[in-house]
Amino acid sequence: MNSKLDETLDNPDWDGMRMLGHRIVDDAVAYLQSVRERAAWQPIPAAVRKGFDEPAPLEPRAPADVYNAVRERILPYPTGNIHPRFWGWVMGTGTLTGAYAELIAATMNANVSGFDDAASAVELQVIGWLRDLLGFPGTSTGLLVSGGSMANLVGLTVARNARAGFDVRREGLGAAPQPLRVYASTQVHNSVKKAVELLGLGRDSLRLVAVGGDYTLALDALEAAIAEDRVRGARPFCVVANCGTVATGALDDLEALASLCEREGLWLHVDGAFGALAALSPELRSRVRGLERADSLAFDLHKWGYVPYEAGCILVRDGHLQREAFAVAADYLAPAGGGVAPRGTFLADQGPQLSRGFRALKVWMALQEHGAHRLGRLVHQNVEQAAYLAERIGAEAELELMAPVPLNVVCFRYRGAAAAQDWDSLNRELLVRLQQSGIAVPSHTLLEGRYALRVAITNHRSRRDDFDLLVSEVLRLGRSLVAQGRTAAAS
Amino acid sequence: MNSKLDETLDNPDWDGMRMLGHRIVDDAVAYLQSVRERAAWQPIPAAVRKGFDEPAPLEPRAPADVYNAVRERILPYPTGNIHPRFWGWVMGTGTLTGAYAELIAATMNANVSGFDDAASAVELQVIGWLRDLLGFPGTSTGLLVSGGSMANLVGLTVARNARAGFDVRREGLGAAPQPLRVYASTQVHNSVKKAVELLGLGRDSLRLVAVGGDYTLALDALEAAIAEDRVRGARPFCVVANCGTVATGALDDLEALASLCEREGLWLHVDGAFGALAALSPELRSRVRGLERADSLAFDLHKWGYVPYEAGCILVRDGHLQREAFAVAADYLAPAGGGVAPRGTFLADQGPQLSRGFRALKVWMALQEHGAHRLGRLVHQNVEQAAYLAERIGAEAELELMAPVPLNVVCFRYRGAAAAQDWDSLNRELLVRLQQSGIAVPSHTLLEGRYALRVAITNHRSRRDDFDLLVSEVLRLGRSLVAQGRTAAAS
Repeated sequence: MNSKLDETLDNPDWDGMRMLGHRIVDDAVAYLQSVRERAAWQPIPAAVRKGFDEPAPLEPRAPADVYNAVRERILPYPTGNIHPRFWGWVMGTGTLTGAYAELIAATMNANVSGFDDAASAVELQVIGWLRDLLGFPGTSTGLLVSGGSMANLVGLTVARNARAGFDVRREGLGAAPQPLRVYASTQVHNSVKKAVELLGLGRDSLRLVAVGGDYTLALDALEAAIAEDRVRGARPFCVVANCGTVATGALDDLEALASLCEREGLWLHVDGAFGALAALSPELRSRVRGLERADSLAFDLHKWGYVPYEAGCILVRDGHLQREAFAVAADYLAPAGGGVAPRGTFLADQGPQLSRGFRALKVWMALQEHGAHRLGRLVHQNVEQAAYLAERIGAEAELELMAPVPLNVVCFRYRGAAAAQDWDSLNRELLVRLQQSGIAVPSHTLLEGRYALRVAITNHRSRRDDFDLLVSEVLRLGRSLVAQGRTAAAS
Repeated sequence: MNSKLDETLDNPDWDGMRMLGHRIVDDAVAYLQSVRERAAWQPIPAAVRKGFDEPAPLEPRAPADVYNAVRERILPYPTGNIHPRFWGWVMGTGTLTGAYAELIAATMNANVSGFDDAASAVELQVIGWLRDLLGFPGTSTGLLVSGGSMANLVGLTVARNARAGFDVRREGLGAAPQPLRVYASTQVHNSVKKAVELLGLGRDSLRLVAVGGDYTLALDALEAAIAEDRVRGARPFCVVANCGTVATGALDDLEALASLCEREGLWLHVDGAFGALAALSPELRSRVRGLERADSLAFDLHKWGYVPYEAGCILVRDGHLQREAFAVAADYLAPAGGGVAPRGTFLADQGPQLSRGFRALKVWMALQEHGAHRLGRLVHQNVEQAAYLAERIGAEAELELMAPVPLNVVCFRYRGAAAAQDWDSLNRELLVRLQQSGIAVPSHTLLEGRYALRVAITNHRSRRDDFDLLVSEVLRLGRSLVAQGRTAAAS
């Protein structure tokens, strides 16, 4: 048969594809350069939304036409977290260099499982950098994963397998001689709950320990819970500490928890999704002290590392335990005496994924471009911005600061002249209107049942005056809603 | 305080960044256009490797300098799967459009959790397309995940939680009244073993069932195993079927397994990492018949969908079971009455990740650019190439075809004049030399203990004559090794 009959997905018009690439770059640069001038968020119009109901395309279409559709129907409607006044949930901003890194990574299309290639070398280097910057010892290993949820899952898998006291991988949890127990504060992230369930421990095995007025885990309550469980015949094996809670940014006392875990023989897993990278700032480092004593540490790079989605990291102090938790022999994966797959660090042995993309490149390029010092300064800047916003709120009689601001999260509400029983519905409506205005995107949470506007700052584009605008808009919307008597709850 | 003091990670020289982007695009186009002229793989030279030991950068560096380092130290050393003669393991090729999609996705930096934004709409559309193309009903849900490993994990989580017979999420597997049992053939992928362990079921709960001479699961052995386990008081709950085994591409009889699972009340999970997309080809569809009857189906888009890493998919027939397996309420995630997070499909409720990147865009653009028909043709072309290679091997007396070729995987070895006891070491050495030559990259496996060269074709750049070259190189290297008496095993 003739090779001319062979078809490929490469478009034969390489020059045309190059021009298309230039156009995409030009649009990307303009998109980010002008992001401040656009709405922080806007809904998808019904006509555009209808296009997303079209059935699967069966026939080909020119790449430029496909891009035109992206440009018209997709690019105008981002989540919004690239905008300087988007502070909802906890989302990073991304950078143009990060986007370029993704282009390069996908061009190489490396499978970063631990082959003899640059991508695996880059990931190992990045893990080494993060290990050193966060004060973990050289014996530790790590892995880049999709984000904090997966990092928590990997950390808790290692904890479970290392500390259950029997061969969990072989026998399963049905063979546990005693019920296993994990501890975390009531403020723990839902990904830890999901991980505990996924791992087959059951959410009954996760004891949620009370917090103090600062939303950090109450040590005496933890000690009492552990003692009580031991008396009842359960086996405590792990404490999950928060290094930056999602609701208020609270920082558990990691030094005290590390000492407690040593005394009690428990695994200390730290969920530092955003908080861990505060360690890059000399001004903030003391607030996360003890982090470096964790048995495992989960954190995101796509939040306070400011790289684009997805990138999280898990570090494990005793590296061999990470491998012991995940490595599985397979005939077709046995290393050879040379070539593409010689014996080396097989990254896929350290987590649940076998094929792995080259997310390490954007982290590598971000650290190369900015250096750890500048990244630390930006993290500190966000924390200073949170303090500034808290101060502005404290100075306004119509606003109430609802929680301490230990890091980068500010919870507050508008009260003004509204009756106390209307505060929840008032702020609920205010938030929707604020988001719909496109001016700013905070999100919300409940603090002891009270509805709070919540500003989480992991945004390198935010400036002081953005927070001034937020305060004035909240005041304006609050007054207007009170004047209209419009406090009806939405949902 | 003055906003002029605020620092950002955006490089103020937007024009310079634009020019850098053009340069990266030009290099990417040239890189892929000329890939056939380069080695399929080359090792990292020692001098370059040394650079990967440098400590974490603390100070900033110009973006163009960072890119120069990428260009010199990283781009020349890819895994190799972009090359037309890379057929190791099972790796997709990627496309330039796919790389552009990643650039666009990272520029938008969407968090695809299910907000009111285009990225979530795109993912829901892509899931709908894949559901329809693979014949799943409208009641099914799905999720894009990092790849087959995660797709298998998600599918088995749903299976476990839906079919364990008690509240696994709450009580954990320690509360199981009976031991649970999962079944798969001995050829099952290691990610299924990892998932079973991760889920706390224990690998003892996974019964590996014998295969026939065609490496497909032996139905009578499965029925006997299920009956035996029931007699012993265990609870069978799930069968994992292979739609394309990793070693030989074997296709379990999905129709028969679906009927068996219906009879026995078991969950049918199909691992179709690459095989599932054979359904896109009218010529191949009958080989994977029964696929559409699975309770859950895992497959990759970064293999036979040819998109860049990472992209896999899980489909679940009874959509509510997927949500029931993963949804966790959290105060700060409660939907609002409008704005960015109205009540809608919250994608993060269907899998372990909360923050999720915009991998849907590359799948959307691939289907838009090529259409399902062309993708199906390319899959079929790879299968035809495998048949052609098998035919070429069959015609060479010095080569032995070692397994049937039901799809796209060809296992063979060089025998020539070598003594039978040397075949393993001879082929082991031959493979390393072949990879090191840069001419072609097969990998290997063991078939009943015998070492096999293994060619897995999920490559849209391969042509017929590439396989001719492979055959002639294997013959040349084999003869030369036999002549040298060099059959020493490496590793």
